[in-house]
Amino acid sequence: MKPIFRRVAVIGKYREPVAGAPPASSRQIIEGIARLIIQEGGEATLEAETAATLGITGYPQLDVDAIGGHCDLCVVVGGDGTMLGVGRRLAAYGTPLVGINKGRLGFITDIPLQSYETSLTAILHGEYEEDVRPLMQARVVRGGECVFEALALNDVVVNRGSTAGMVELRIEVDGVFVSNQRADGLIVASPTGSTAYSLSAGGPMLHPSIPGWVLVPIAPHTLSNRPIVLSDSSEIAIEVAGGRGISANFDMQSLASLQRGDRVLVRRSAHRVCFLHPRGWSYFSTLRKKLRWNEGGS
Amino acid sequence: MKPIFRRVAVIGKYREPVAGAPPASSRQIIEGIARLIIQEGGEATLEAETAATLGITGYPQLDVDAIGGHCDLCVVVGGDGTMLGVGRRLAAYGTPLVGINKGRLGFITDIPLQSYETSLTAILHGEYEEDVRPLMQARVVRGGECVFEALALNDVVVNRGSTAGMVELRIEVDGVFVSNQRADGLIVASPTGSTAYSLSAGGPMLHPSIPGWVLVPIAPHTLSNRPIVLSDSSEIAIEVAGGRGISANFDMQSLASLQRGDRVLVRRSAHRVCFLHPRGWSYFSTLRKKLRWNEGGS
Amino acid sequence: MKPIFRRVAVIGKYREPVAGAPPASSRQIIEGIARLIIQEGGEATLEAETAATLGITGYPQLDVDAIGGHCDLCVVVGGDGTMLGVGRRLAAYGTPLVGINKGRLGFITDIPLQSYETSLTAILHGEYEEDVRPLMQARVVRGGECVFEALALNDVVVNRGSTAGMVELRIEVDGVFVSNQRADGLIVASPTGSTAYSLSAGGPMLHPSIPGWVLVPIAPHTLSNRPIVLSDSSEIAIEVAGGRGISANFDMQSLASLQRGDRVLVRRSAHRVCFLHPRGWSYFSTLRKKLRWNEGGS
Amino acid sequence: MKPIFRRVAVIGKYREPVAGAPPASSRQIIEGIARLIIQEGGEATLEAETAATLGITGYPQLDVDAIGGHCDLCVVVGGDGTMLGVGRRLAAYGTPLVGINKGRLGFITDIPLQSYETSLTAILHGEYEEDVRPLMQARVVRGGECVFEALALNDVVVNRGSTAGMVELRIEVDGVFVSNQRADGLIVASPTGSTAYSLSAGGPMLHPSIPGWVLVPIAPHTLSNRPIVLSDSSEIAIEVAGGRGISANFDMQSLASLQRGDRVLVRRSAHRVCFLHPRGWSYFSTLRKKLRWNEGGS
Repeated sequence: MKPIFRRVAVIGKYREPVAGAPPASSRQIIEGIARLIIQEGGEATLEAETAATLGITGYPQLDVDAIGGHCDLCVVVGGDGTMLGVGRRLAAYGTPLVGINKGRLGFITDIPLQSYETSLTAILHGEYEEDVRPLMQARVVRGGECVFEALALNDVVVNRGSTAGMVELRIEVDGVFVSNQRADGLIVASPTGSTAYSLSAGGPMLHPSIPGWVLVPIAPHTLSNRPIVLSDSSEIAIEVAGGRGISANFDMQSLASLQRGDRVLVRRSAHRVCFLHPRGWSYFSTLRKKLRWNEGGS
Repeated sequence: MKPIFRRVAVIGKYREPVAGAPPASSRQIIEGIARLIIQEGGEATLEAETAATLGITGYPQLDVDAIGGHCDLCVVVGGDGTMLGVGRRLAAYGTPLVGINKGRLGFITDIPLQSYETSLTAILHGEYEEDVRPLMQARVVRGGECVFEALALNDVVVNRGSTAGMVELRIEVDGVFVSNQRADGLIVASPTGSTAYSLSAGGPMLHPSIPGWVLVPIAPHTLSNRPIVLSDSSEIAIEVAGGRGISANFDMQSLASLQRGDRVLVRRSAHRVCFLHPRGWSYFSTLRKKLRWNEGGS
Repeated sequence: MKPIFRRVAVIGKYREPVAGAPPASSRQIIEGIARLIIQEGGEATLEAETAATLGITGYPQLDVDAIGGHCDLCVVVGGDGTMLGVGRRLAAYGTPLVGINKGRLGFITDIPLQSYETSLTAILHGEYEEDVRPLMQARVVRGGECVFEALALNDVVVNRGSTAGMVELRIEVDGVFVSNQRADGLIVASPTGSTAYSLSAGGPMLHPSIPGWVLVPIAPHTLSNRPIVLSDSSEIAIEVAGGRGISANFDMQSLASLQRGDRVLVRRSAHRVCFLHPRGWSYFSTLRKKLRWNEGGS
Repeated sequence: MKPIFRRVAVIGKYREPVAGAPPASSRQIIEGIARLIIQEGGEATLEAETAATLGITGYPQLDVDAIGGHCDLCVVVGGDGTMLGVGRRLAAYGTPLVGINKGRLGFITDIPLQSYETSLTAILHGEYEEDVRPLMQARVVRGGECVFEALALNDVVVNRGSTAGMVELRIEVDGVFVSNQRADGLIVASPTGSTAYSLSAGGPMLHPSIPGWVLVPIAPHTLSNRPIVLSDSSEIAIEVAGGRGISANFDMQSLASLQRGDRVLVRRSAHRVCFLHPRGWSYFSTLRKKLRWNEGGS
């Protein structure tokens, strides 16, 4: 039986830091996945840097953008961070992603390496749960010009310098004034990002079906400055009104040295990212595992 | 110039506790509003209990359901609690509501009594901001039968008895298991309710445009049981799995003595409530005032 | 070698609910502990109800008060709740306590049943860490008269009825006005109680060496009403200023139907409770285990 | 009648930024205070930089250390930040401090400039409430050597760089391991600092009589890493176990570029700071004002 997804790319940890020879096991993992794809009737393509880093030959190679243009599915081996990076780069192409995790399971990479064969085979043949995530498009505007632009799957964060006092931010939504805030910083998190940094700062979880972002102040001076969920069809503007050493971070891609008057603008991207999970996957079962809700904790 | 809203009802504090003669001022307020409506070219109808309680005669009278069927607009004099009650009862008719507040302004009743004439006149002639709020439809099912049913604009709360230990609740969304929780209770709040009890219990604010409810555990045993925002197109089921003296509250309408196995089911009502505000009103300016964001607090 | 503690009492779960015959294993456990005490050179006494409930004969029996008067050490088999109860009753006598836990380890009962022999033997011979906890003495005063009095090791809680609105409380410290609070309730927790209910309601942990109580409002109406740590040499007064169905709970011992004007008074008891732990025990290692700090959780 | 405090120093905002000529009003304020001191029978001394900055002559001048050695009381004109700075410098001398506030009243500077005469006169003659605050002595040890040392009245903070990920900290108390934490940072706050940054980060308030510090993680990765109050007679050690761009801040005095293995050590200073307040002052009335507990807020 032909698989639903014929041309399947495999990416290992994107831009893996190479310290001497890569571990043989990494090569074996990627080759094992490629063989499985072929065995199931598909065509396996390796992401070029992955192949080069691991010294794998004998398979077609493409860079990430070309994978987006040519492949029907992309298998990513790594953690949530790796998936976020690949997801952002493939978003414009709509290529669905499957995550195989080498270590502790993540919120979005939930197939354990030890037993990926069954899950992956089923997914290749169309047995999967679809999990579509919105993407943020963020810009920094200075004096009317865009000085930085990035996509973010998790969050956009504006925060203070290490030895500086609070930031002062002026927040607007679609041109309507919301509030002035003094705080360590402000997080704008997507549903995907709502279980990451935002959660640590006191934000709520947003189910992926919620078309909204949550704004979470970090250590706000005014105690009634609390998280607020806003529509993702609005444009959120965060203007730097005061503070020193301020930076903006987009899924940890950083722009340092924001200046007074700089505006960080966040809107929903036209693109979305689609993760595929094994049949029976549920968003809530992942939450239960990751947040240890089931263990009767203290 | 004819007003946009021709047949306008006026309701004073619904079921006002009568202790001796009602204050003359209450009567004067309601009569003043009725005269303004007539003066602007409309027809003023008084809600029957309001008229009876205050001893006002000389105006047509209708009960609340008849107001829903016959009037184009309903002016409510009172606080947020009064508006919630009238809003729930008129929801099926789609009658828009205007709130005039005798005391401290509320989140939804934001026209001060001292200066209502200008605002109300403008609204009668079509100068207003519309503020549409979703409504929850909640049921309690016991042994397969519905034993209680109510609408709620703010929240549905399941909580423990005063001298009892924690409740144990099993939560499902559209039949999918979410979590078991042990806590003082659980709040399911609408965007409207997200600035009420839910906020005190640590929940986020939800902008009225967010099609979701927030589930907020009250003093949860497991510290990682945090607020979660779920789609309002889902059905949320809260099953009583343990505890004593448990009650369910729907905008403070209560059902006491829930039993093990009882299920509280929450879905979005087909109806919504529409509040009208003076031109220039913004949701965020109300938040700033009510939460004192502007005052540079400590 | 003679043990440091010669006369040692053993208490099983105090007032165990008897459903038919007690499990043989409970009897075996208690008898095993008694034999170990004798074997180590001590005298084993059984708490009378424990012996009666489990049908154990052949050992001297005393009630709890007599144990306080005659024994040098008391071994308690059960969870934290059992220990709290025995601890309050023995406080006046100063008898130290050792906790053996049948199930999941608690904050204060930290010797697992599976391997108690080594730990208990060492403790009997003076190898232990001492862990002294302050005790609260609480009274409810109505119209100048004391209508309820109790000791509490964990907390004193004033809270609202299940279907009622908020309580209104007026708080004073040594006669000085602190604040009026509207909330679901208020917790006054000792260091011991600071890792129990108080923690769920957002309170901090207090190290047992801190001579203070923490006041934690439950779901407070005013968002800046935050936990505050006060000296345990002060008298804290909580006056009921409004609300219905209010109760006061002292380590879960309840007084229902508090009235407007009732005052709940909390002071430090002259007595303290002394728990003994195996050598190497540390307060922080218990926190790490119970709060799962070590597991790299999400 | 001779005043209780004979030799009284006056300090304006310490190291005031001079932009052109200082405002005449600042000079008039300081001179007015000096005249009042003399008029009440005392000797007025000006802090030398204050006099130089404001161009005041005709009074004895001393630097801050000499003030500590020679004066009985020090009047500080400024906000809480100014008081903290002067308090730290005078701590070794035990000179009590009175704060006169030019703007919004602070937590410790609570005499309004508009009406200081009555309050100050009364204090000079012994009518005051004493408010003694502990002081933290903090060091940074690198490779066995102390590379930084400072006093702090509010807090010691270790936090991450602006564009870096979390810090990893290992916490010990008196050599006993407490926990490893991953977070934006960690605050160790005194009772005085517990109403400042620590409160924004979710910490409790500590009454000044509590002999403890509160450790408050900022946006901790593990949700059960909660504030903990520890005895101020312990030494707290915070070791940098990972992260980049980390800094340590002592009442906002900063040491940047902490390295892996650096240890920040916090203990109680032998010195304390004594603030004097007008008769009738209470710690709680200041909290009520600053945190707006009295205003029936939302």
